[in-house]
Amino acid sequence: MINITLPDGSVKQYEKGTTPLQVALSISSGLARNVISAKFNDSIVETTTLLQEDGKLVLLTFNDDEGKQAFWHSTSHVMAQALLKLYPKVHLTIGPSIENGFYYDVELNGEVISENDFPKIEAKMLELARGKHDFEMREVSKSEALDYYKSKNNPFKVELIENLEDGTITFCDHDDFTDLCRGGHIPNTGFIKAVKLMNIAGAYWRGDETNPQLTRIYGISFPKQKELKEYLALLEEAKKRDHRKLGKELKLFTFSKKVGQGLPLWLPKGAALRDRLEKFMKDAQEAAGYQPVVSPHIGQKELYMTSGHFQKYGEDSFQSIKTPQDGEEYLLKPMNCPHHCEIFNSQAWSYRDLPQRYAEFGTVYRYEQSGELHGLTRVRGFTQDDAHIFCMPEQLDEEFKKVIDLVLYVFGALGFENFTAQVSLRDPENPSKYIGSDENWTKAEAAILNAAEEKGLNYKVETGEAAFYGPKLDFMVKDALGRQWQLGTIQVDYNLPERFELEYKGSDNEMHRPVMIHRAPFGSLERFIAILLEHTGGNFPLWLMPEQAIILSISEKYENYSKKVLSLLKKHEIRATFDNRGETMGKKIREAEMNKIPYMLIIGEAEVENETVSVRKHGGDDLGEMPIESFAKILQVETDKEIHTFEV
Amino acid sequence: MINITLPDGSVKQYEKGTTPLQVALSISSGLARNVISAKFNDSIVETTTLLQEDGKLVLLTFNDDEGKQAFWHSTSHVMAQALLKLYPKVHLTIGPSIENGFYYDVELNGEVISENDFPKIEAKMLELARGKHDFEMREVSKSEALDYYKSKNNPFKVELIENLEDGTITFCDHDDFTDLCRGGHIPNTGFIKAVKLMNIAGAYWRGDETNPQLTRIYGISFPKQKELKEYLALLEEAKKRDHRKLGKELKLFTFSKKVGQGLPLWLPKGAALRDRLEKFMKDAQEAAGYQPVVSPHIGQKELYMTSGHFQKYGEDSFQSIKTPQDGEEYLLKPMNCPHHCEIFNSQAWSYRDLPQRYAEFGTVYRYEQSGELHGLTRVRGFTQDDAHIFCMPEQLDEEFKKVIDLVLYVFGALGFENFTAQVSLRDPENPSKYIGSDENWTKAEAAILNAAEEKGLNYKVETGEAAFYGPKLDFMVKDALGRQWQLGTIQVDYNLPERFELEYKGSDNEMHRPVMIHRAPFGSLERFIAILLEHTGGNFPLWLMPEQAIILSISEKYENYSKKVLSLLKKHEIRATFDNRGETMGKKIREAEMNKIPYMLIIGEAEVENETVSVRKHGGDDLGEMPIESFAKILQVETDKEIHTFEV
Repeated sequence: MINITLPDGSVKQYEKGTTPLQVALSISSGLARNVISAKFNDSIVETTTLLQEDGKLVLLTFNDDEGKQAFWHSTSHVMAQALLKLYPKVHLTIGPSIENGFYYDVELNGEVISENDFPKIEAKMLELARGKHDFEMREVSKSEALDYYKSKNNPFKVELIENLEDGTITFCDHDDFTDLCRGGHIPNTGFIKAVKLMNIAGAYWRGDETNPQLTRIYGISFPKQKELKEYLALLEEAKKRDHRKLGKELKLFTFSKKVGQGLPLWLPKGAALRDRLEKFMKDAQEAAGYQPVVSPHIGQKELYMTSGHFQKYGEDSFQSIKTPQDGEEYLLKPMNCPHHCEIFNSQAWSYRDLPQRYAEFGTVYRYEQSGELHGLTRVRGFTQDDAHIFCMPEQLDEEFKKVIDLVLYVFGALGFENFTAQVSLRDPENPSKYIGSDENWTKAEAAILNAAEEKGLNYKVETGEAAFYGPKLDFMVKDALGRQWQLGTIQVDYNLPERFELEYKGSDNEMHRPVMIHRAPFGSLERFIAILLEHTGGNFPLWLMPEQAIILSISEKYENYSKKVLSLLKKHEIRATFDNRGETMGKKIREAEMNKIPYMLIIGEAEVENETVSVRKHGGDDLGEMPIESFAKILQVETDKEIHTFEV
Repeated sequence: MINITLPDGSVKQYEKGTTPLQVALSISSGLARNVISAKFNDSIVETTTLLQEDGKLVLLTFNDDEGKQAFWHSTSHVMAQALLKLYPKVHLTIGPSIENGFYYDVELNGEVISENDFPKIEAKMLELARGKHDFEMREVSKSEALDYYKSKNNPFKVELIENLEDGTITFCDHDDFTDLCRGGHIPNTGFIKAVKLMNIAGAYWRGDETNPQLTRIYGISFPKQKELKEYLALLEEAKKRDHRKLGKELKLFTFSKKVGQGLPLWLPKGAALRDRLEKFMKDAQEAAGYQPVVSPHIGQKELYMTSGHFQKYGEDSFQSIKTPQDGEEYLLKPMNCPHHCEIFNSQAWSYRDLPQRYAEFGTVYRYEQSGELHGLTRVRGFTQDDAHIFCMPEQLDEEFKKVIDLVLYVFGALGFENFTAQVSLRDPENPSKYIGSDENWTKAEAAILNAAEEKGLNYKVETGEAAFYGPKLDFMVKDALGRQWQLGTIQVDYNLPERFELEYKGSDNEMHRPVMIHRAPFGSLERFIAILLEHTGGNFPLWLMPEQAIILSISEKYENYSKKVLSLLKKHEIRATFDNRGETMGKKIREAEMNKIPYMLIIGEAEVENETVSVRKHGGDDLGEMPIESFAKILQVETDKEIHTFEV
């Protein structure tokens, strides 16, 4: 008998050689129907693997990330099988699962495949899947494996096998198809009920452009047709909400080849948006007792030698800036913390002065390979809403809670309602990996856990995930399309205070080392605005909108009254514009809709006569005719709902 | 007879060989008493020079900059004479006038001179001056000149004479003293009534450290003892107001060796001050129709090749930043204009869209040699309140007037009441030096002159002083100590629109090139704050003050009430702090005075009982006991006087 520990901690006894599927069946037949893969002692196994020893077993369904990976990996086998049936001459190479779906790289070897062939391939895949063929792993000898692929004239698989260094080589069979494979499959092809090939692209064998060119076919699959439909709809929506597309349409930002890739130029509406976000955060931070500081965008190499950043990132960073005389060497700052440490170090502190909380919207520069740049989410220059709190170890608890309050305030005002947290602690089995005293770590970890608990966060604890310099708390928000984004890290740091020899005089008249907290609720303004664009589709909260209202006049006759309305709106601090072009009302409304302007104020003869405006909401709702004051009131009520003053 | 044209344009006839002094005498004996030098046909001459031809004559007194130079240069002769009398072995080298006074470099040749000897030297100088010895120029032959100095064993003067390439060598005699000299003296030593030696320092012959070491003695002199006293008092005051000293005392900014020289770190109070200045300017700019933009602090080398900055400054700048891959080359941006041109270029424009006014608080980096760095006035990184106006040539007039309005608004709110302007036009004799059509230049120059006239500026016109790319208008402000600072340039630019190929579609449906205006009322925030510190001595206008009021409680018993007052002040948007240290009231007041806090609110038993505060102004004025609301009202009235909303 063996002891199997399940995720809920319960331990059950089974006969040696029991399979995960049998374990599932012993729990419930419903579970067994959905189990498609399993993890035994932290390794992925088949549902048919014979369990030979005591261990922890996790049964995986399609709802688990690792379940999805098994599902998609298995589907790539089916696609390979289908390809060989339709295009017998192709040579298979490798076919892994990826974040969303899978691909297979094949050498066409004279065959021709295009997107037009996708329906045919999909149909063949589903036909094969319906056969409910089991995936079965078997060990083969190296010579057997080589013989098999040599008989198929497949030089790629032969090369793979020749390079395999460990002794065990495994094949996976299903139906009449066999592939070299390390495992991780669903029980049988019958689970695959919906398939969609997404894309076809060129690739090089082993990613090396001197090697033969291959063809990569991307696909995705689901256990239900409905799930595929939902996925495709989500994809369609995500395309519409792509921040690069919206950024262009809404004239928020642009890029210039001459300025350089990954370096956004903020257009007036985008710059005003940044200004508003900055003001929002600065107001909240002032209320929370932060003090502003400003530091330059470069620092001497010595500064980053002291902080350790140069040793760690120097080679892969923007290279250093030499001076024409004086023999100095500067670096673009990749982080603001070294500068803030120097500011802290510029005067003497007593315990009465702590905490010192230094906040800066600091623009930092980090080199990213051009292939990795992506709109505003992966850039080479970005502005952090950075702050560093220098406090006594015994103040960590209080400070952590305050930072959580601030982060939650930010999420609330920006419409992120769906979020979780993760607390990363040190690995207790590896204490030498970490800097800082055991006593301080214990205190800091307790402080974070206590703060997370007291603030009622939905959090999980990850042991061993702390950085070497301190434990941390990360927030993960889910956007309107269900995608997860990491936003808002709160990080304890025992390292920089040590390296910069920061100190304060304690109540005992001795010198002590303060602790640092790094925190940035937005993270970077650029990435945050990208996420906000994709989350809201450009329909920002009203308080943040570049243009809150637009005046559309039915005829040029009403220009004077329209301008009067505009100036009244300004007095109410409503951001409005007046479209006084000689275009049709239909065209003006269409453009205002495209620009996502929340309110359109239509002005015709009646409105002039009654000193009113007729209000049309973005999307089409007609709120009717009303005096300007009533309209201003509506906006006031709406923004009051969205945002309130931050109070400690 | 010769015709002499005087500065007022009048022409008078004199006999050939008349001297400037005789001309002065012919005008008034009062003038003749004060004339100490003269300029004839743009060259400095002696008051005794015989005028031999028609020409323009300017008679100079000590009130003229050039008069001061003659005065100080002449005094350096007297100092040299005094030194030779007291220290016969010294060898004279050179002794020019400088911005404030003069110096003489001497080789001590065994003599010893220290600051302690200054009174003795000054006394000797005044004694010699009282002899009213005429300064008389005479021509000497090269051999005569060499013989003279060889007889004195002076290798320095010998070297100077040997290197003189033009034929005429002149000596200047007064009393028993002779010096090699090109001229530019006052009539006689009797004008020198007050002398002060300022400093003694080491120097190298010809500034080359491989040459013999010399001793440099700095001094200054005046026609009246009173003027010296005033100058020394001013110097004392300037020392107190040195922005580097005040910046430290008021905790506004600091520098760090590790971060790098010339790169200020702004401490909380300084950063808050910057924030307020930025907000002030942003509000005014928004009202004036500017739009914010944000651009990165680096740009590809190609960007600065296009703008021409690289060709002009590349070698002497911070060197380029290479990337670890992709083979790119970036530069720290020395100016924001190239980025703004790229922003303008990111979309198509019609004449209806112009002007586009892009404003950015852009931090730029320019390499300065370490020896030239000075506090905040000469730094390597600074933030410009930069904006670029892209307009049609026919809009220049209107735009120029608007910019002048904005600059005058800024000067008013910051307390600079004393300023003049300078209009720099092209040199009409050198038309090929300038880029842009003759028609456009004519239009632009007329626009500037018209704007300066219409806005009632006190301006002078400098022909030939325009940059090659356009005419400009500069403002010069006088600070409280009478020192001049250049603040606020408005510059027309035909060059960058050409280089970046900017264009818009005109009403004629043809493409046209816009004109650019560069303007920055503050110039740089760093330099502006330095000037403001020295102008106000740290007593900023109340609206700008980091701390407007401080609460000083007589006893710890009143802490609760004090905190209540603090929160009431916050509600009135008054920036206040509460000094709740257990120090004596005397010490607290002294520190508040040192920190230049405009109002101290004293809280004792009576104030708690009456729910009031007792108000003491910075400097000592007692305003008596009053309710918080009355105090808030006083502040409101005061700031309303200082600053109002900018309106177009």
